Amino acid sequence: MTENSTALQIALAYHEAWTTKDLDRAMSYIAEDIVCDAPAGRIEGAEAYRAFMAPFVRILLDARMIAAFGDEQTALVMYDTTTVPVPNAPGAECVTVKDNKITYSRFLFDRAPFEAARR
Amino acid sequence: MTENSTALQIALAYHEAWTTKDLDRAMSYIAEDIVCDAPAGRIEGAEAYRAFMAPFVRILLDARMIAAFGDEQTALVMYDTTTVPVPNAPGAECVTVKDNKITYSRFLFDRAPFEAARR
Repeated sequence: MTENSTALQIALAYHEAWTTKDLDRAMSYIAEDIVCDAPAGRIEGAEAYRAFMAPFVRILLDARMIAAFGDEQTALVMYDTTTVPVPNAPGAECVTVKDNKITYSRFLFDRAPFEAARR
Repeated sequence: MTENSTALQIALAYHEAWTTKDLDRAMSYIAEDIVCDAPAGRIEGAEAYRAFMAPFVRILLDARMIAAFGDEQTALVMYDTTTVPVPNAPGAECVTVKDNKITYSRFLFDRAPFEAARR
C-alpha cells in the first residue's frame, strides 16, 4: 500500500478483509480515532468500532459488492450480505480516508430484520 | 437532457426533484417498468414506485446529499434526510439507468426508527 492509495482502494481492501472474516486485517485500515455514524448512533475510536463490527462478522455467511465508487478522499460502497439471522442484509458505507486509513464512516443498514429476528 | 446523460446526472436530477417534493418531476426519471428492491421487498412498476415514494415525500422536511458517484450505467448516492417522525433518516440508492430513466433501484434505509415512531 503506497501513500497514493485512493479512498476507494482502501475501502475495497477493508471490505475484502471483513467479508472474509479477517477482522485484524480489516482493522489495519481503520484509524485509531475513527468516527462512525451508524444506525444506532456514533461510535468513536478503533476499539469501539471493532466491538461494533465483531458480532456482525461472526454472523456473516456471505457478502456481494453491489457497487463501489470513490475518489482520493471519499469512497461509497453498497453491498449485500447473507447473515445467520437475516438472509438479505444489505449495507452501505461512505468513508473518508486519510493517510490510507478510514477516519470517518457513515454506515447504513436496515436494523428492522435484525430486531425482528431477535424477537 | 440529452441521450448522453450519465446515470449520475439522472440520479442527481431525480434526487433534486423528490427532495424538493416535486414527485411528478421525480417520476419523469423513473422507467415505467422500474424494479426497486427496497427494505420491505420488491416494488415493480412506476405506479407502485410512486405509491412507495409519496408517503415519504409527504413527511420529508429536509435532505442533504452525503456522497454521489456513478458512471454511464450506474449511480450510487447516500443522503441524509430529516422527516417528521425521524430527525435523522439517511438513505442510499444504487440505480441503473437506461435511456435516461432509472430502470432498477436498490434502495436502503433503516426502518427501525420509523417502526419505533409508529409504536
